Amino acid sequence: MKGYGIVKRIAIDMDEVMADAFQKTLTTFNQRFNFKLTKDDLLGTKLVELFPELKGEIYNFLSEPDFFRDLQVVENCRETILELSEHYEIIIATAAMEVPNSFNAKYAWLKENFEFLNDQHFVFCGDKSVVQADYLIDDNIYQLDSFSNQGILFTAPHNIYDVYENRVNNWLEVREYFMSILV
Amino acid sequence: MKGYGIVKRIAIDMDEVMADAFQKTLTTFNQRFNFKLTKDDLLGTKLVELFPELKGEIYNFLSEPDFFRDLQVVENCRETILELSEHYEIIIATAAMEVPNSFNAKYAWLKENFEFLNDQHFVFCGDKSVVQADYLIDDNIYQLDSFSNQGILFTAPHNIYDVYENRVNNWLEVREYFMSILV
Repeated sequence: MKGYGIVKRIAIDMDEVMADAFQKTLTTFNQRFNFKLTKDDLLGTKLVELFPELKGEIYNFLSEPDFFRDLQVVENCRETILELSEHYEIIIATAAMEVPNSFNAKYAWLKENFEFLNDQHFVFCGDKSVVQADYLIDDNIYQLDSFSNQGILFTAPHNIYDVYENRVNNWLEVREYFMSILV
Repeated sequence: MKGYGIVKRIAIDMDEVMADAFQKTLTTFNQRFNFKLTKDDLLGTKLVELFPELKGEIYNFLSEPDFFRDLQVVENCRETILELSEHYEIIIATAAMEVPNSFNAKYAWLKENFEFLNDQHFVFCGDKSVVQADYLIDDNIYQLDSFSNQGILFTAPHNIYDVYENRVNNWLEVREYFMSILV
């Protein structure tokens, strides 16, 4: 049999879906530039949109080799993926090309926190139109739009006002979505 | 429009297709373990199959962070991909998960030698069943078998005796294959 089979495949984005990149980015930004921004200041926007003049500096700290190494796992993510992996094929699809220095840290983070996943199904990519899967869970609408099959928007501060037909607000809702459609 | 479009997409493997990993691996092996193996000794096999007791050592030198940084570009590869990129969407799909330390070197190698390619279309993966494309050019039959669409076997010493319906022996044949099927 060519390709993948009867078991449906879920591709999952890392940053702001599995890994709390938002909180570390905000904390680091506040510390380095002496701000006191909160999550509420970033609803519907991003740091680089609020502070375009600091784009280079923000990119620089994101590019530090270990930035992505110690992110917190998003609540209920690990348990849910573990459960879903009994019924679906799980692919981790992370847009790593904008921060190529992050490759090693992201790989090590996955191996540490999701040791039950098969690293043959890790995909470090750019545009997620290259990902072959039935579903993609992602916080970026532009990635969901370029993906060929069913997209699921995972709520993050920056996408809170975006309109998208399939939205989940947390991992319990991801669980409910995928367990309810199991045949 | 969802996904990719009317322009057909070619995914291309790196090692032994774009980059001459074979020659550097052989030279390094000979130097470190005092052998005088030639390409002829490796027809239809691989170093790790010939010397299973040295598998760990071979893996160790492949895992050195810069091993993949200075590979020679395979003959006629650059010019052919440049020409094909005018008619096809080009994806670079490299199996990087077995040597995670190679991520940075492979990325830098691509940016240096194929600066005209879009890094949003670089895919560092394991199993190539995750790659969404119309064609895959690869030297590994098992990757072609797991890929969902049309595979093209690129001749390498290890696959010389493998039977596969679509085989190309060099980049001139790749050019001919893809230019002849253009509508």
